[in-house]
Amino acid sequence: MALETLAASRCFDGEQLRLRHAATTVDCTMTFSVFLPPQARQGPVPVLYWLSGLTCTDENFVTKAGAQRYAAEAGIALVAADTSPRGDAVPDDPEGAWDFGLGAGFYVNATEAPWRDHYRMYDYVVHELPALVTAEFPLRDGQAAIAGHSMGGHGALVAGLRNPDRYASISAFAPISAPSQCPWGRKALGHYLGPDPTRWRAWDAEALLRDGASARPLLVDQGGADGFLEEQLMPERLAAACADAGVEATLRQQPGYDHSYYFIASFIGEHIAFHAERLGAA
Amino acid sequence: MALETLAASRCFDGEQLRLRHAATTVDCTMTFSVFLPPQARQGPVPVLYWLSGLTCTDENFVTKAGAQRYAAEAGIALVAADTSPRGDAVPDDPEGAWDFGLGAGFYVNATEAPWRDHYRMYDYVVHELPALVTAEFPLRDGQAAIAGHSMGGHGALVAGLRNPDRYASISAFAPISAPSQCPWGRKALGHYLGPDPTRWRAWDAEALLRDGASARPLLVDQGGADGFLEEQLMPERLAAACADAGVEATLRQQPGYDHSYYFIASFIGEHIAFHAERLGAA
Repeated sequence: MALETLAASRCFDGEQLRLRHAATTVDCTMTFSVFLPPQARQGPVPVLYWLSGLTCTDENFVTKAGAQRYAAEAGIALVAADTSPRGDAVPDDPEGAWDFGLGAGFYVNATEAPWRDHYRMYDYVVHELPALVTAEFPLRDGQAAIAGHSMGGHGALVAGLRNPDRYASISAFAPISAPSQCPWGRKALGHYLGPDPTRWRAWDAEALLRDGASARPLLVDQGGADGFLEEQLMPERLAAACADAGVEATLRQQPGYDHSYYFIASFIGEHIAFHAERLGAA
Repeated sequence: MALETLAASRCFDGEQLRLRHAATTVDCTMTFSVFLPPQARQGPVPVLYWLSGLTCTDENFVTKAGAQRYAAEAGIALVAADTSPRGDAVPDDPEGAWDFGLGAGFYVNATEAPWRDHYRMYDYVVHELPALVTAEFPLRDGQAAIAGHSMGGHGALVAGLRNPDRYASISAFAPISAPSQCPWGRKALGHYLGPDPTRWRAWDAEALLRDGASARPLLVDQGGADGFLEEQLMPERLAAACADAGVEATLRQQPGYDHSYYFIASFIGEHIAFHAERLGAA
């Protein structure tokens, strides 16, 4: 199957696209979304990759964050990935839980059966999807940034910390900062990577920082009224690891904001401005 | 049942609320949404009522339009209504069609059985809901405007043209401008109001203008790539009626835009600025 366009809508004088393709890394059909700002009609533009949280698809960010306005102003393309492999052949949590399996790939490369055949979302979002969109759309090669929310904030931090050459900047909303230490992360990493926690360190932002990852400029917003803050998100662990590693990081708490897209919508403009500055956008 | 808060999220330093109450005009439980801008903490603010299109609830506009940013800047509250009465006791299209019945109240007061007991959305959105929210929230009495999309654009035009004393300004995205002349409108008005088209005139923007309605300032945007444009929306009939009536109207075609919320999101900022100017917002 070639790249198939599922939907296209004019949006802020740019183009919002939804597409589908046969993905090899995750061995299934994958759907994703691309926003091309009006500047892309004149030539290649930088790109911000977005990774969503648990239960989301590529659509949540595209329909709810209001990011296109800011991306159109800054001249940046947006690429939103799905949160897991999909399809009848893809195994799911045996109990149908929403925090593991479908919609919950955690952006790792699974090593354990039955997950390892499809749950290779890290390779998908860091390698396969960027290669595809850079070939198909007017995107500037090598001018990319990455951002995400919750599980996708974890994904953005891990992808960014592991690939300082690929991403000019990293940002996150309410990321799972230390998945090895929280229930969501321990469940997912335990299944995808096996029970040995030392094998989780390469997929854990706090551990990557403590193990010497060289970070790009980093912006994180965390809502002060987020119901997952203490048990799952642990921003204080990220703050301590950044401080100890001497990493340039802006870690903000936004009082009163929860975990929803209303929080993301309220600050996505500042995140896009942060990335635009580092991407040298139009 | 008193007014019940279903959800509350901080959003652009204001508050996005979803609420439920026992509505008397439509004799059922109704859900609606309110955005209070940060200025509402200092005192009453003007309000913009939003009416959505076919198949929508109060949530589509709230989650997809990105309106809160502009409302927060302008100091205007947003109130989004549902599109029909709801509940087990409320009759629906016998064939389950999406263009009539549940999700398709057309903002009229039905006169025909079995619709007339619940399908009184005009009274609900023009009288009951404003009385409720003005009593419950810091809204300036008598400083309101109205806007909507598609079927809700029809609703906003009709409510505005029938009540120049209630609404300082009217705006619409891709409204059903002449429901008496299009398939969606003829089906709905025929069922809700009976087969005599002369009884439809009070619920048809074109007919209201031709019958001498005194209009408030009016802004309409229509996407040039909207698949419903010719058969259902008929903006040229609205334009001709405004011209003949000498009504102050800004009727724009936006090339390339379709019927989706990407279109609404792209221009909602201009609509809110239009209303803010006429509402004398902060």
